[in-house]
Amino acid sequence: MQIAVIGHAQATPGEYEAAYTAGRLIAGNGAVLICGGLGGVMEAACRGAKEAGGTTVGILPGTEGGNPCIDITIRTGLGHARNVLVVLSADAVIAVGGKYGTLSEIAIALKTGRPVYGLGTWDIEGVIPCSSPEDAVMRAVQDATRSRTA
Amino acid sequence: MQIAVIGHAQATPGEYEAAYTAGRLIAGNGAVLICGGLGGVMEAACRGAKEAGGTTVGILPGTEGGNPCIDITIRTGLGHARNVLVVLSADAVIAVGGKYGTLSEIAIALKTGRPVYGLGTWDIEGVIPCSSPEDAVMRAVQDATRSRTA
Amino acid sequence: MQIAVIGHAQATPGEYEAAYTAGRLIAGNGAVLICGGLGGVMEAACRGAKEAGGTTVGILPGTEGGNPCIDITIRTGLGHARNVLVVLSADAVIAVGGKYGTLSEIAIALKTGRPVYGLGTWDIEGVIPCSSPEDAVMRAVQDATRSRTA
Amino acid sequence: MQIAVIGHAQATPGEYEAAYTAGRLIAGNGAVLICGGLGGVMEAACRGAKEAGGTTVGILPGTEGGNPCIDITIRTGLGHARNVLVVLSADAVIAVGGKYGTLSEIAIALKTGRPVYGLGTWDIEGVIPCSSPEDAVMRAVQDATRSRTA
Repeated sequence: MQIAVIGHAQATPGEYEAAYTAGRLIAGNGAVLICGGLGGVMEAACRGAKEAGGTTVGILPGTEGGNPCIDITIRTGLGHARNVLVVLSADAVIAVGGKYGTLSEIAIALKTGRPVYGLGTWDIEGVIPCSSPEDAVMRAVQDATRSRTA
Repeated sequence: MQIAVIGHAQATPGEYEAAYTAGRLIAGNGAVLICGGLGGVMEAACRGAKEAGGTTVGILPGTEGGNPCIDITIRTGLGHARNVLVVLSADAVIAVGGKYGTLSEIAIALKTGRPVYGLGTWDIEGVIPCSSPEDAVMRAVQDATRSRTA
Repeated sequence: MQIAVIGHAQATPGEYEAAYTAGRLIAGNGAVLICGGLGGVMEAACRGAKEAGGTTVGILPGTEGGNPCIDITIRTGLGHARNVLVVLSADAVIAVGGKYGTLSEIAIALKTGRPVYGLGTWDIEGVIPCSSPEDAVMRAVQDATRSRTA
Repeated sequence: MQIAVIGHAQATPGEYEAAYTAGRLIAGNGAVLICGGLGGVMEAACRGAKEAGGTTVGILPGTEGGNPCIDITIRTGLGHARNVLVVLSADAVIAVGGKYGTLSEIAIALKTGRPVYGLGTWDIEGVIPCSSPEDAVMRAVQDATRSRTA
C-alpha cells in the first residue's frame, strides 16, 4: 500500500504539522509514504513517517539531492513531469495546502481515478475535504486497502 | 511564436466552434499552433489553423496516431506526462472547456509563468477569462510577442 | 515524413559538414527535420535544412534556448529522457558520430523498429553504415515513405 | 546505497541465475535493488534480493502491474523514457545480458557517470566486464559506497 502526501516545498507551520502527522499515521498503518522528495510538506511527511518506523520514497524532479528523511530516492531529471509519477505511484493521495504544482498533481490523480483527500488545499470538484490528518489518513488507508484487494 | 490550445478530446459543439475559431486566428496571426494532438478541442483548433494556412504541432501521449490536421507530430509515449510538454512549448495558452487533464495543463502553465486565457474553462486563480476566441487570441498573441522580444 | 539527425553537441568539422549536408537533403526531399535542438551536429543539420527551405523541429532537454535554426521548439524539461522523443518522433534516423547520448537514441530507435543510418557512428548491430550523407538520406527517405504509406 | 540490475524481460537460464545471485548479494550488502519492475532479469534480481531480506524497487514503464517480488512500485506511464529513471536512481549499475532497451540504459548510465558492470552484456567502451555476479556486486558496492561518502 503506497500513499502520497503532496504539497508545497515551503510549508506554513500548520501545513508542516499536518503533513508530519499524516506521515506518522501512514507509516503507523503499514503504508509506504510516496512524495516529491523536496522540503516543506514533503519533508514533514517523510519526517513523521520515519519517526514512526515507516518507509519513505522521494521522487525527485532533478538528478540529485532530496530531503534527509528519504529512504528510497527516485532521481528522474524530468522536471515538472515528475509530478505525474508521484500520483501514479500512489493508491491514494493526501493534499496539504499547495500551489500550482500541487494542483497539477491533484488533477492527474483525479483523472486517473485516485482518491484525493484534502487538508486546506485546492477546492476542486472531486477532492474530499478532511477535518484532520487523522481523518485523511484513515480514509486513504481504507481506499488503498480496497484498491489493492479489488 | 507558439500558442497552445488545450481542452478535452470530446468537445461540445460550442467548445469545438471556439477552438476552431481560436485555431484560425492563431494561424492568421502567424503563430504556430501547439496542442495535444488528439480529437475534440485539439482537432478543432488544428482544423481552424490549417484552413487559415498555419502550421500545427501535435504532442501525442502515445507513440502513434494523432488527428488528421497535424503537420508536425511529436510522439512521446509519455502518457499523462506529455501534458507538461504541451504548455512548456507554448508562449501562451488558451484553455477551452476541459476536464482534469486540462486542469493539469493550466496548473503547469501558471506554475511556469505562461499566461492562460480561458473560454468556459476551470475557474482557477490566474486564469484570465475571455469573452470570445477573438479576445483570447488577441491577448495571447500580445503576450507571446512580448515574451519573445523581452 | 519526419527524419531525425542525431549526434553530439560538439561536432568535429567532418561531422558538422555531414550533418549539414544531411539536413539540406532531408529538406530537399520534403521531409521535416527532427533533432535535439542543441548545437554541433543538431545545429548543422538545422542549418542545412533551413538553407534548403525546409522545416526544423528541436526537441530540447531543457525549458528554454535551442539553436538559432529551429522553426518549432519543443521544450520538454525532461533532461536525458527527451532523447526518447527525438527518435519516436522520427520515421527514420540518421546518426552522425556521437557519444553516449547518441548511443541511447540509437538503442531506442532500434528497439522501436526505426531504421538507423550511420555516418561514422557507433558500430551496433542493426545500424546500417552509409558511405555519405547522400546515401544515408536517400535510404532514410525511402524507408520513411514506405512506413508512411504502409 | 541503490544498485540497479538491468537486462531483458525474457532471460536465458544463465542470465536468470546471474541476476538472481546479483540480487541476493546486493541485498546481502545492505543496498536497495533498483530495476525496471518487469520479468526475466528484473524479476530474477528481485527474487534474489527478497530471499536475502532486501528491499526492491520496480520502476515500471506502464501504470500497473510489475513482478511479484517488488516492494516499492514506481508507476511512471513513461514508456521507454522510464529506462532513464532506472539508471539515474542507481549509484552503480549491473547489466546482465540485454537487448536494445538495456543498451539504452547502459548509454545513459555511462553518460551520467555511473559505473556499469557487465555480465555477458553489450561490449561498449566504458562497460567493465565481470567474471561473476560476485565480482560485479563487490565492485558495484565499492563504487556506490565511495560515491555516497564523496
